[in-house]
Amino acid sequence: MTRTVVVAGGSGFIGSHLCERLLDRGDRVICVDNLSTGKRANIAELESRPEMRFFEADVCEEFGPDLRNLIEDWGLDAVLHLASPASPPAYLARPIETLDVGSRGTRNLLHVAEAQGARFILASTSEVYGDPLEHPQTESYWGNVNPIGERSVYDESKRFAEALTMAMHRSRGMNIGILRIFNTYGPRLQPSDGRVISNFVAQALSGVPFTMYGDGSQTRSFCYVDDLVTGIVAMLDSSEVGPINLGNPIEFTLRELADVMAELCEVPLQITYAPLPSDDPRMRQPDITLARERLGWEPQIDLRDGLASTIAWQRSR
Amino acid sequence: MTRTVVVAGGSGFIGSHLCERLLDRGDRVICVDNLSTGKRANIAELESRPEMRFFEADVCEEFGPDLRNLIEDWGLDAVLHLASPASPPAYLARPIETLDVGSRGTRNLLHVAEAQGARFILASTSEVYGDPLEHPQTESYWGNVNPIGERSVYDESKRFAEALTMAMHRSRGMNIGILRIFNTYGPRLQPSDGRVISNFVAQALSGVPFTMYGDGSQTRSFCYVDDLVTGIVAMLDSSEVGPINLGNPIEFTLRELADVMAELCEVPLQITYAPLPSDDPRMRQPDITLARERLGWEPQIDLRDGLASTIAWQRSR
Repeated sequence: MTRTVVVAGGSGFIGSHLCERLLDRGDRVICVDNLSTGKRANIAELESRPEMRFFEADVCEEFGPDLRNLIEDWGLDAVLHLASPASPPAYLARPIETLDVGSRGTRNLLHVAEAQGARFILASTSEVYGDPLEHPQTESYWGNVNPIGERSVYDESKRFAEALTMAMHRSRGMNIGILRIFNTYGPRLQPSDGRVISNFVAQALSGVPFTMYGDGSQTRSFCYVDDLVTGIVAMLDSSEVGPINLGNPIEFTLRELADVMAELCEVPLQITYAPLPSDDPRMRQPDITLARERLGWEPQIDLRDGLASTIAWQRSR
Repeated sequence: MTRTVVVAGGSGFIGSHLCERLLDRGDRVICVDNLSTGKRANIAELESRPEMRFFEADVCEEFGPDLRNLIEDWGLDAVLHLASPASPPAYLARPIETLDVGSRGTRNLLHVAEAQGARFILASTSEVYGDPLEHPQTESYWGNVNPIGERSVYDESKRFAEALTMAMHRSRGMNIGILRIFNTYGPRLQPSDGRVISNFVAQALSGVPFTMYGDGSQTRSFCYVDDLVTGIVAMLDSSEVGPINLGNPIEFTLRELADVMAELCEVPLQITYAPLPSDDPRMRQPDITLARERLGWEPQIDLRDGLASTIAWQRSR
């Protein structure tokens, strides 16, 4: 039986890969995106597929009649809520919008799912752990977030979305699942993302030195988007409530990243050192025991392969 | 010049005292309450005053034409947002409503204030500190809240309200102030509040033994409502952004409370001991240095006097 899935934020970096995967396995996909940070180009190749529909719409508002009619017509098995500005430059530039999509947007999408008896998956974030005092982070850690800090427009919005989603499960018996997504990279990650992988790729392809904030000994962990999408689909197909962390626990230093990047881009390794900004992304590393146990999931793609695909995509643009 | 103030949640325990104080000093008060947990009886004596208007309305929805017209007519100097279920039994029974009033309600009231160039005061709560790892709590402490716990419907709703209020200040220059209100007691505190003072008063007046969870050596701090209202008005009249804690830092043991209560109610001291519930309210004690310095505020009324008034009110019902 064909399943129908709404992917809110389906034109974004992760959302577009998710739409593609769902279509590839035969699901019908209703992609809803207001194109605030998502790009129509991300789904250009998908729009010609018969089982794909795109609606330019803001999930903070009630769905319009065309969208409602399509859902009535096709039925609805699941709503995947990935809609939100997600990179620090994107959400800091859109503070009210970010708070709105986590609150009003989540509420609207929960109601759509509830009305159709559909499963609801919330794409939450490792940012709910804030500046964590526990390493690595397990799902039982409550986090360390400044409720009135600049970043709270994203962090508190996602924490609120989790609380609301869980309340709809507890008090109304809704079928829900919460994922906490850690740093992800891959094709379609915007060069303006502002995080180290997109910065390094852009610099290598432009032939300018890598900008290294600090001495490069600090570590990061990034999950390749294909791995991440496999985890999201496993969560969709399960009946797990979560929250469940999805991310790659393998850490690398920024110096290691620069080495691999220079090699893959076939450029000499050149580094410009700069001081660490005061709000440098804090160390976060997922504990994925729960994802392994409950979803049978773990990342498969190593950094070198993932970076090669990412660089190839960026080069092709 | 007469000032006009919207008090959202003005029929609640704290809200009704606040309405009274504002009327007493000559302000015009527009009390908006959906009477979900507020009581019309709380403001019965105020409704005959010429400068008082009551609207039974849900702040999660747009204001109706009568209310909008009155605001246009009178102008608006401030919006005080006290609307929310606030006691654990009340918000646990209304999980979605509690999340809504902190998100949609806060958003609507911010827009009302912004449209009129009015100051907006958010009544946040010590619950944003959750199960605190620092004692006493200063405003710079980020808190320890479980985003998906039963209580998150209140805690995360208030944290979201703080984040949204601060974002409206940062990104749109709104005149805002955030208060974090600790445990409060006094006349009109509902016997169903579920916390120790209302429980003990009800038990003393019914002639049944006090129920003591644990051995009674645990401490609490409660602020008398008249003191608290003085602090809210000082915040209203200031241009402070906050957050600023309002509460009484003086701690007493539950055993001391039982002693004073029995004496004031003129009943013999009888105690039934019961085990501590697993979710017993955690120790919280405000650091009020900031309120002293910025608002010139500190509590004046001692526990014995405050309890006497509280008991007298409960007895008169």
